[in-house]
Amino acid sequence: MTDEQPRTGLQRTSEAAFERLEAVTTAADADAFVHVGDRFDDDLWYLTRFAGPDRDYAFVFVDGRAFLCAPRLFAEQADREFPGEVVAASDATSSTAADRALDVLAERRPPSEVRVLVPPSIPASAARTIEDAVDDVRFEDVDLGRARKSVAERERHAVVQTAAQQGLARAEAVLASATVEGDELRWRGEALTTERLRREVNATLASEGVRDAGNTVIGAGSSCADLHFTGRDRIAPDETVLLDLSPRGSQGYYADLTRTFVVGDVDDWTSRAYEAVATAQDAALDALRDGAGVRASRVHEAAVETLASYGFEAGDVAVGMSHGTGHGVGVSLHEPPSLSSDRVLEDGAVVTVEPGVYDPERGGVRLEDLVVVTADGYENLTAYPREIHPVDGRTR
Amino acid sequence: MTDEQPRTGLQRTSEAAFERLEAVTTAADADAFVHVGDRFDDDLWYLTRFAGPDRDYAFVFVDGRAFLCAPRLFAEQADREFPGEVVAASDATSSTAADRALDVLAERRPPSEVRVLVPPSIPASAARTIEDAVDDVRFEDVDLGRARKSVAERERHAVVQTAAQQGLARAEAVLASATVEGDELRWRGEALTTERLRREVNATLASEGVRDAGNTVIGAGSSCADLHFTGRDRIAPDETVLLDLSPRGSQGYYADLTRTFVVGDVDDWTSRAYEAVATAQDAALDALRDGAGVRASRVHEAAVETLASYGFEAGDVAVGMSHGTGHGVGVSLHEPPSLSSDRVLEDGAVVTVEPGVYDPERGGVRLEDLVVVTADGYENLTAYPREIHPVDGRTR
Repeated sequence: MTDEQPRTGLQRTSEAAFERLEAVTTAADADAFVHVGDRFDDDLWYLTRFAGPDRDYAFVFVDGRAFLCAPRLFAEQADREFPGEVVAASDATSSTAADRALDVLAERRPPSEVRVLVPPSIPASAARTIEDAVDDVRFEDVDLGRARKSVAERERHAVVQTAAQQGLARAEAVLASATVEGDELRWRGEALTTERLRREVNATLASEGVRDAGNTVIGAGSSCADLHFTGRDRIAPDETVLLDLSPRGSQGYYADLTRTFVVGDVDDWTSRAYEAVATAQDAALDALRDGAGVRASRVHEAAVETLASYGFEAGDVAVGMSHGTGHGVGVSLHEPPSLSSDRVLEDGAVVTVEPGVYDPERGGVRLEDLVVVTADGYENLTAYPREIHPVDGRTR
Repeated sequence: MTDEQPRTGLQRTSEAAFERLEAVTTAADADAFVHVGDRFDDDLWYLTRFAGPDRDYAFVFVDGRAFLCAPRLFAEQADREFPGEVVAASDATSSTAADRALDVLAERRPPSEVRVLVPPSIPASAARTIEDAVDDVRFEDVDLGRARKSVAERERHAVVQTAAQQGLARAEAVLASATVEGDELRWRGEALTTERLRREVNATLASEGVRDAGNTVIGAGSSCADLHFTGRDRIAPDETVLLDLSPRGSQGYYADLTRTFVVGDVDDWTSRAYEAVATAQDAALDALRDGAGVRASRVHEAAVETLASYGFEAGDVAVGMSHGTGHGVGVSLHEPPSLSSDRVLEDGAVVTVEPGVYDPERGGVRLEDLVVVTADGYENLTAYPREIHPVDGRTR
């Protein structure tokens, strides 16, 4: 398997975003849209597909044309990756990315006469530069259409989710071959820690061509209740081991996959929690059975109601489900639509379905799949068993 | 080897930054410093050590105290990681990180009466929120002292650089065991591509507990001249293979390491380029022999002069050295001091020394070490041979 993809599909997705920008600017009676950011800005990545270095870039949409202002050293790469027109400026100049964006505007009409839409997330310094030159700047979040994934984007998510499954399979193999010695698990002659397990997972992800992105959360026992645990706990028998993998593919799309295991005996609380969470996940998925048009919060409520029937609370609680049932995933790991929101889910929404229950004294159980909502149902991008005892030999 | 480190050393580094903030705010007759950003903001990482999720956070320094405004779901993690005081706010509120920062200020004195320093890099929306509430906001880059690495930080760089060397050793092993069939290299029965080599490197980095961070640049032949090549070229015999690894450790510090290899015959141009670059690197390092106090540009000039003696130009050129000789490295991959700048290098500056020459028609050679400038010399954090023919069995 590779993370390879004809780039034209994703470039077409960006071109569709340009079309939205055309409609949005026209509706707002604006002449241009300007965005400034760096390689960590996901909107800018979505618009440009430019995986350049850690510098500021600018994106300009004006007169129906899309421009990327990039450093000259990386102009060839920008030409290759960006489906619009590249304006390269020498690194030797002291001009900022915002200055270069203004140059692009100025070549077309006097900046004092244009009305420009700008995302409020751009750096304050870039905003100041634009405001100083342009009379009419409107700071406004613009919907680029990221919540409706194109076919090319769905394929990216599927490929990266498959890689995540390989990472999880590696973790299961390690857990299954660990031995119990007293109150600890040992593997290859040493205590098995969450960090050792993380390295095994991350090496597998890298072999599959995806990045762990610092998101390989592994909890053991009480640290399962810590939603973003990336520490180094020793793993004990008979306790929950929670793995939440969110690698990022080379094209920027994330996977999201969680399973929970126990090596050894499963106590009553954990057994009930696992059954509650699995049933809640089924109920949440069932709420998606008619596809686009369902209100996002319906999915969350389905999970919450199921957990309640097992005696687990949800909300701002220490014991129970302390988070929502899911969130949108794309070129950001967390993006709209949240399943706690009132939004109506659209065809092409890629969301997690991840109920969980936690007790800081005992541990935690979470099960997470990644699904794409379709016109008349949903497609689960995840094909991974839900079994509490780890097994060696899961393969794709 | 592990990437483990008693956190107190780095937390003390952050506390030293708080002391600088005390001095800077006092000198500016300001009452507070406010920063807003997310996990990708390196200043915020440096100040907080908080590896939270992809949300906006705020950092407030006021009355000699440092506050982190973090989402309640991650408050325990913030308490563990941040060496100041954590103010947790429920995710259910609609308040932004900037609002929370204002709350922290308001508990101490009326916002209309404070003078606040704010980095110009914060999001424009956060800047607007602060400006609406605070009469006297000054947007100003504040020197947090990042260019002078503490002992704990130098240790982090050394550990991550050692992991990078393991990644490079893996690449050499693969190249050394590849076989020549006609005009292509083959490895394990398939054509060897830059992408296959990248996966081997990245899996090794992950096993060492560091992230490739999307920075594993591998060029082959003409793509060596492409400074940020992350594509999938087939690797041919007798052409340059350039590997530039910049992984990031779990504590946020980067390594930076480049070597260039040829499998097969080395042509005259490549042989001359390799010798020129190696000699230029020696000359640049020699310019650092007296340690802190040297002007950064002296190091670059030493490399440029040496390359010129081999007939290679530098500057805005297509053939020759098209980039500077080095840059600062820390919790950002590229940060001050640039070796092209007029800055005087300080004790504790961690910089790359990486001359290179390229010819888009032929290939490219770059050799890069990571060094720390000390009071009376420099310490090379790199211990990796410079040999053009790959060897299997490099070990740390």
